[in-house]
Amino acid sequence: MKIEPRTLKGFRDFLPKSARKRQYVLETLKRVFESYGFEPLETPALEYEEILVGKYGAEGDKLMYRFTDNGDRKVAMRYDQTVPLARVVAQYQNELPIPFKRYQIQNVWRAENTQRGRYREFLQVDADIVGTYSLLADAEVISAVIKCLEVLGFKNFKINVNDRENFANIDQSAILTIDKLKKIGRDGVLKELQEKGLPTSALNEVLNKKINDKLKDVLDVVKDERVVFDPALARGLDYYTGLIFEVEIEGYEVGSVAGGGRYDSLIGMFAGKDIPAVGFAFGFDRLIEAMETLNLFPTNLYTSKVLVAFVSSGLQEKALKIADELRNKKINCEVYLEDVNLEKQLKYADKKQIPYVVIINDKGLVMKNMNERTQEELTLEQILKSLS
Amino acid sequence: MKIEPRTLKGFRDFLPKSARKRQYVLETLKRVFESYGFEPLETPALEYEEILVGKYGAEGDKLMYRFTDNGDRKVAMRYDQTVPLARVVAQYQNELPIPFKRYQIQNVWRAENTQRGRYREFLQVDADIVGTYSLLADAEVISAVIKCLEVLGFKNFKINVNDRENFANIDQSAILTIDKLKKIGRDGVLKELQEKGLPTSALNEVLNKKINDKLKDVLDVVKDERVVFDPALARGLDYYTGLIFEVEIEGYEVGSVAGGGRYDSLIGMFAGKDIPAVGFAFGFDRLIEAMETLNLFPTNLYTSKVLVAFVSSGLQEKALKIADELRNKKINCEVYLEDVNLEKQLKYADKKQIPYVVIINDKGLVMKNMNERTQEELTLEQILKSLS
Repeated sequence: MKIEPRTLKGFRDFLPKSARKRQYVLETLKRVFESYGFEPLETPALEYEEILVGKYGAEGDKLMYRFTDNGDRKVAMRYDQTVPLARVVAQYQNELPIPFKRYQIQNVWRAENTQRGRYREFLQVDADIVGTYSLLADAEVISAVIKCLEVLGFKNFKINVNDRENFANIDQSAILTIDKLKKIGRDGVLKELQEKGLPTSALNEVLNKKINDKLKDVLDVVKDERVVFDPALARGLDYYTGLIFEVEIEGYEVGSVAGGGRYDSLIGMFAGKDIPAVGFAFGFDRLIEAMETLNLFPTNLYTSKVLVAFVSSGLQEKALKIADELRNKKINCEVYLEDVNLEKQLKYADKKQIPYVVIINDKGLVMKNMNERTQEELTLEQILKSLS
Repeated sequence: MKIEPRTLKGFRDFLPKSARKRQYVLETLKRVFESYGFEPLETPALEYEEILVGKYGAEGDKLMYRFTDNGDRKVAMRYDQTVPLARVVAQYQNELPIPFKRYQIQNVWRAENTQRGRYREFLQVDADIVGTYSLLADAEVISAVIKCLEVLGFKNFKINVNDRENFANIDQSAILTIDKLKKIGRDGVLKELQEKGLPTSALNEVLNKKINDKLKDVLDVVKDERVVFDPALARGLDYYTGLIFEVEIEGYEVGSVAGGGRYDSLIGMFAGKDIPAVGFAFGFDRLIEAMETLNLFPTNLYTSKVLVAFVSSGLQEKALKIADELRNKKINCEVYLEDVNLEKQLKYADKKQIPYVVIINDKGLVMKNMNERTQEELTLEQILKSLS
């Protein structure tokens, strides 16, 4: 029986062209995280069910991938990276430096409705500081987010910030509605509040809030005019206890590519005591989409920089030697592995987006620029020099 | 009810100290793979069960993590990266360059017996060339493995090679026994053959084989005297059809850290035709273990290079500014985020293995080398220069 090659709904293969883009973004983010002293953490894909269940509300329990393993253990697949972080903090209390600054970049699985364009396997990119109430930590996570956006090439963006304490007297259901202000407008919010039977005065009460001293202190440390107080910013999740923030990018209106805040009562769930924490997450798929939309990917995201091609089979061995010399100069390159005509080799270079082809003919070497469709005769020394 | 923070048997957390080592090795391997034109590929953690089941023998079906998802689909967790590669090759035939040179570095899950020191979640590191029978591809995978080992710092190693065709007349069960020659010795092999009721002559028959022309051609291209013909090398897996090889490292006798070969009848399983392939895999956990055993990890695998410390709270703001200047010079650094005494800051640097501490006191700056336990007064310019 022939089995049809296919992937599950909501799951994706990343072929080289998109995998390269993902790697580019991840390497950039890691570099920035590490420049602030955030260290890598990895946790397992599977956890005891009891570790995860009940931590994400009824919706989470429903969307979680859960099953019974061969040893009759009830297990669940990673649903986010915050609950595993809470487990790690409790499990290795004496080993971890405090504050514990970690980043974590792993897939999570949620049986989401794929009709809304959601994925069931997606990468989460988190960075958090655990174990301090210091406002310097709040300032640092905002600074790190700004640096990430800058290094990725974003130019016109804002970080909207607020303090969750400004919603202290507001019903959680009203918060969720007010959070939609940018999306559905003032009238939309008032209408939805009414429909929910909530006082419409909640909106004005929130919008009239002034920036408080703690938030002002944080902004004084960050010192960046792109960080702006936004009294309507609420963020949906109910575990925030202080600072909350979201990134807004001009030219990409789909939604925020990153957000975060302070959550001082969550990380201690397994330790049996409050452990303060502040952090942020990038929405990785959105970030990629925003970069595509704004053309922020470098045009030179290739793997091989050079294909060393040959016009006749007798020259293939010479091609292998030249490839070695290029590699010794740290230039990624390859030779077409079969004895085929030049046209086929050039097509291969095109398909792999290789920007240069060095063609060996009986007289010497020709370097072809595949993007500009130009070529010139050069010596090996000239080629090594121009490509290094 | 307090939930005990714990991980499932066979599953591991990687705290920063070990996560950093893993990243170092992975980044090195990726760099080498890409220097040969291997491109990244990612496939989902979950596949339709029918894609994976029956591809790994009875043992594989037993050890595979399988369950029924919320949509009543029978699904299975990634068990290796070869079957997903076969699916990808069939599913995207027209999009992929041929030869398709890909590397893939993802976790796989197997419900192994953990008493034998096996893990149930572990990283696989594969690189393969799909779509060509060319012996240059065989040579390239061997060259790439050698380069990986060299760049990681291994000095005394051998690549044992053989051709699976040399076992053409030998029973698969006898092959598995002969493969243990290095482990259990000549007498052990003969004894096991007898016990299995197999002709003991099989051993000599194999050992008397000479290197064949194809293998000689491959070694002529690789041109490396560490690659040696080993007629007893069999490799357990039964899908190899030509070249087979394994790495042997002096001073690490636990087992091979990498191996591979040619398998021309496997990758076409979903395409309905033979598709040739040759490749290799690193045993990632073994590789890490071998590097630990031989002390090959750099001593400077830190995240932050510098902790900027302060002797009194008034100086913390100055510390933040100096940290910014260090970061602008691409030096990873951080400031202790709470207002604590110097001793506590130094302990934190020790715990995070931060090699340098710049201490701000009322008179100026002191740079402390945490490994050598030395310190000297320096200007900021001198510090920036010495750390860059």
